[in-house]
Amino acid sequence: MPTQFDPPSGTRDFLAREYETRERAFAHIRSVFARYGFEPLATPAFERLDVLMGKYGEEGDKLIFKILRRGEHEETGEADLALRYDMTVPLARVAANYGSQLPSPYKRYAIGPVWRADRPGRGRFREFTQCDLDTLGSTSPLADAEVMSAVHDVLSGLGIGEFRFLLNSRRVLAGLLEVFGVPDTLGPGVLASLDKLDKLAPGDVISELAGRGLEEAKAGELVSAMTAGDAVERIRDALKSSEEGSAGLDEVDAIGSLLANELPAGRAGFTPRLVRGLGYYTGAIWEVVVAGVPGSLVGGGRYDHLIETLGGPDVPATGGSLGIERILALLANADRHTRLDVAVTIMDERYATRGFSFAAAARHAGLRSSIYLGSSAKLGRQLKWASDQGARWAVIYGAAEDEAGTVTVRDMTSGEQSAVPAADLAGHFARVRAETPLPGSAG
Amino acid sequence: MPTQFDPPSGTRDFLAREYETRERAFAHIRSVFARYGFEPLATPAFERLDVLMGKYGEEGDKLIFKILRRGEHEETGEADLALRYDMTVPLARVAANYGSQLPSPYKRYAIGPVWRADRPGRGRFREFTQCDLDTLGSTSPLADAEVMSAVHDVLSGLGIGEFRFLLNSRRVLAGLLEVFGVPDTLGPGVLASLDKLDKLAPGDVISELAGRGLEEAKAGELVSAMTAGDAVERIRDALKSSEEGSAGLDEVDAIGSLLANELPAGRAGFTPRLVRGLGYYTGAIWEVVVAGVPGSLVGGGRYDHLIETLGGPDVPATGGSLGIERILALLANADRHTRLDVAVTIMDERYATRGFSFAAAARHAGLRSSIYLGSSAKLGRQLKWASDQGARWAVIYGAAEDEAGTVTVRDMTSGEQSAVPAADLAGHFARVRAETPLPGSAG
Repeated sequence: MPTQFDPPSGTRDFLAREYETRERAFAHIRSVFARYGFEPLATPAFERLDVLMGKYGEEGDKLIFKILRRGEHEETGEADLALRYDMTVPLARVAANYGSQLPSPYKRYAIGPVWRADRPGRGRFREFTQCDLDTLGSTSPLADAEVMSAVHDVLSGLGIGEFRFLLNSRRVLAGLLEVFGVPDTLGPGVLASLDKLDKLAPGDVISELAGRGLEEAKAGELVSAMTAGDAVERIRDALKSSEEGSAGLDEVDAIGSLLANELPAGRAGFTPRLVRGLGYYTGAIWEVVVAGVPGSLVGGGRYDHLIETLGGPDVPATGGSLGIERILALLANADRHTRLDVAVTIMDERYATRGFSFAAAARHAGLRSSIYLGSSAKLGRQLKWASDQGARWAVIYGAAEDEAGTVTVRDMTSGEQSAVPAADLAGHFARVRAETPLPGSAG
Repeated sequence: MPTQFDPPSGTRDFLAREYETRERAFAHIRSVFARYGFEPLATPAFERLDVLMGKYGEEGDKLIFKILRRGEHEETGEADLALRYDMTVPLARVAANYGSQLPSPYKRYAIGPVWRADRPGRGRFREFTQCDLDTLGSTSPLADAEVMSAVHDVLSGLGIGEFRFLLNSRRVLAGLLEVFGVPDTLGPGVLASLDKLDKLAPGDVISELAGRGLEEAKAGELVSAMTAGDAVERIRDALKSSEEGSAGLDEVDAIGSLLANELPAGRAGFTPRLVRGLGYYTGAIWEVVVAGVPGSLVGGGRYDHLIETLGGPDVPATGGSLGIERILALLANADRHTRLDVAVTIMDERYATRGFSFAAAARHAGLRSSIYLGSSAKLGRQLKWASDQGARWAVIYGAAEDEAGTVTVRDMTSGEQSAVPAADLAGHFARVRAETPLPGSAG
């Protein structure tokens, strides 16, 4: 049952542990992208309404969160701004706005929240993180392969095991329609049906194709070529008679051989049935799938005229979008979240200033440290707090220590205690720090 | 002149260089906060409208960006969500929602954008980053001092030079009003006028106080006590006759002596005229100022009942808010942004696959690397690209190298070229990497 204190429907609060799991993944992604020479871009959370409307089709437009005009115009109920729906329209605006200030080609990544007024559901959010990387200004298959190789490094670095790239080209699909004599008017519908071959039985797809007006014999031929055990060879053979199809195949093969050198064997394969839903792709298209997980984790392809359609310059473009929320859901949960390495207890208010300095000494040694801020004077209570914080050591300082000029350092794992000269506490922690592996230390 | 491709008024696009300057500062801040045992919290960009409305006063309410209801309700022009206006109301909601799941005390920080429909101006944005750290659940002056000490470490780590903490307590101010016989009804107005003593001449403040209904003689006495050369001593002396004032002074002194041990001398000082605008403070209040910079960089204090007022539990609380945009404006600009360490040229399409592998070899050595994606076959053009990327080395591979089984590695600084065995390229880069300081390398 949602309460009045829950975050709005379809959104989430991230407390420390989840936040850190996510940030660790994002840091890894940023570092891989940087290693490929992609640079970061951050755009505002909202755009002017006219920049977004009409770019995502009728269904998409309905999912855009609109922001009311402020001030005297508020009462009109009109909107003039809208929350970012994806990272591609802002990219087109940036390409149009900063043109010559941007490097050429412009290789950029963007990681951040987007908002969609979708019906919230299992794994479907109204606020979620999108992660795109794109290269504007190159027609070379090297650019496609580079994006895919970076995605590979991201996924393998995150520990995603059995993933594979499915690779195809829109030009291969155009060649197929040509070779199998599918009338132009039926093309988009036929591709939409073929896209379901990974979910529906071949017979159902044939019926659907027939329903769209394709001759049943032709539909059967097409589907059987796409689903046969030797589908790849049959399609390769059939495409020889199509100029467009052959060009598409060359593109697929160029990317495939670039990747073959770098990726483990069998990681990327020509997949003639791969269509991808979005109409704007013009060349190579690809998806990353994982055995046992429905749908895809990453998708991308070449979209040479989209940036112009969205209001930007007419530049060739290729890129990919990582389904961050799906990828994060596959990762093992972080270890127990710890907040402190050194917890400083305080036995007597008179020693508060000393304790405050002990915590500072531990921080100077690079450790996370805080003094006890509660109101109990009982050591047991304070050690319980130290343990709850995940602290590796507790510092204890009372009248005996004050007299001896020492500090008692308690190992919270073994319970062993040792006396350390108060003046050498920072040095002591610097030494033990070098010897002790610590979870999630601030470094 | 704004164009149709500019970001919305009052917002900014952050291209690579600015983005990285900001991210570096945020990473430093996060690491300092973690070292003090503060944990991160991220809440959604929007909250339900009723969670935000009425929490910021009439003027604040007008600055809240409201989001239109979606679906069939859109035509009503009604809003049901609103963009986050600060980090404090979401904190109160989180404290109410997750109660016992949160550690006690709950020490959290939040860094992220907030949105205000303010009139944009120099240094005033409609989307800007807010950075708060707060401790809920402790009444100890140790908690106040810990927040201030963390702020100190952030600022000195960022290289902000001559900053100082101004420290006071609301209870000192209450004591002053009592000692100088200011009627209760005039209290808030009198404090608001005293708050201007850093901007207005004493005479003007006296006139303003008189205008508010305070006897002119009393106003003169009060202002002269606050502005005298020995103001601090005079105020200390005067407060002795007020129980509330003495308690406030004890609070100020406790925090001051905790900080005195850790901060350089003179960094924090009792400042009786410090009022801070916000009415919700209940105890210690403080600001960070820098010589020559008007206003404050950081502000904070104790607000023991605010969380309850905002809908959360009744917990004592203390915290601070860093004026990130003002702080960033004081920082030196980043060095020239570089995108690559190793730029791989491509002299002939036949060698594209080799080049793709050379770039991968450099990445395996931890360097940022990419192959040339453009269409020129001219070495000069490609070396120009390598130089534009800030690359330290260019890799050249043509027919001669192919025959010799070597790769030419060009030092882009000296122009020197050396032949490296192709099979040892990753090893070569691993060795030179260890010897060469690189700007902004992905690491």
